Amino acid sequence: MVVERLPLYARALALLQYEGQEVVSSAELGERLRVTPAQIRKDLSYFGRFGKQGRGYNVSKLLEELRLILGLDRQWRMALIGVGKLGRAILEYGGFAPQGFRIVQAFDVNPDIVGKELGALVVRDVSELEPALAAEPVDIGIVAVPAQVAQQIIDALVRCGVKAILNYAPIPVHKPPGVEVRPVDPVLQLQRMAYYLKSLAIPTK
Amino acid sequence: MVVERLPLYARALALLQYEGQEVVSSAELGERLRVTPAQIRKDLSYFGRFGKQGRGYNVSKLLEELRLILGLDRQWRMALIGVGKLGRAILEYGGFAPQGFRIVQAFDVNPDIVGKELGALVVRDVSELEPALAAEPVDIGIVAVPAQVAQQIIDALVRCGVKAILNYAPIPVHKPPGVEVRPVDPVLQLQRMAYYLKSLAIPTK
Repeated sequence: MVVERLPLYARALALLQYEGQEVVSSAELGERLRVTPAQIRKDLSYFGRFGKQGRGYNVSKLLEELRLILGLDRQWRMALIGVGKLGRAILEYGGFAPQGFRIVQAFDVNPDIVGKELGALVVRDVSELEPALAAEPVDIGIVAVPAQVAQQIIDALVRCGVKAILNYAPIPVHKPPGVEVRPVDPVLQLQRMAYYLKSLAIPTK
Repeated sequence: MVVERLPLYARALALLQYEGQEVVSSAELGERLRVTPAQIRKDLSYFGRFGKQGRGYNVSKLLEELRLILGLDRQWRMALIGVGKLGRAILEYGGFAPQGFRIVQAFDVNPDIVGKELGALVVRDVSELEPALAAEPVDIGIVAVPAQVAQQIIDALVRCGVKAILNYAPIPVHKPPGVEVRPVDPVLQLQRMAYYLKSLAIPTK
């Protein structure tokens, strides 16, 4: 689907802009992104006419358009649920804020963690999740709780009207239509690669 | 592809085993995993006959078989490149080792980090990467360096004979055939969801 690729286009264009390049062909963009030039032209034509035949795309203009289309021109407010080791790493991760994704609320169940000040946030008890999000809505929920309680947290976020959830818990989840849940699951990626490595029958100790 | 789903089956079975369930039908497994029962039967039949018609699958036996097929019955050795904030979170993440994925070497370029003892590891200078991996090979490389240098690190890993790479750097990478590179990219997932949220035209501040 085109939405899988558009953020990659925006990223490649941002890098080109940073490198000072003003125009880029679909061939060059395709080479950078491992996508065929035909696919790129098709994806972009879906949103209107960008490049001129044989002239390539204006990097800054296309980037600006894509950022608008993707909603990357604004700030998105996020709530983090689960402030254990993983949750803390997510809080400290420097890659979200520059892209417009800000964690503005954090919740945990552990009394040693609840009430702690982390950066600009105070961790609240997860029992306050629903009133807190009613008072101060967020766009996105980040679930970083153990697998056994992930579903109930996701249900609570859905009840709060959250329509987009980034799920770090290693389970597939139930969700109503109209809610997007996307996984971040490095162990799953490793397990898939283990299968590949095994198929190579690499001799290892 | 079946390899995308098999680790999910193994996970669901491990949970069923933990819950004390001895037999599971493809319908129940499908319900848990959001996959059709027909797909499950097809995926599993690909590896030989598991369940008995109308009797369901023996949970422990199927799990054991899947773990063998997937290579989850053994230890995989990993090298981490990049021990900044993200790399440290990866080192401290408790989810890899119980699944058989162990980080046994770590490298960085920052003189403040090189030489540091982190758990059982001493962080080495990235200039030692190739001799170190020649002396003590690993199965998997984890790339947690900034985007600008990710490609050169991946090239170095490939030269060392590493065939599987988990890439946390937010760029698509070039790799020779026969090498698997899988991304872990939460920002990309957020950007895709932002596009979705924008399409809903949710009123936000």
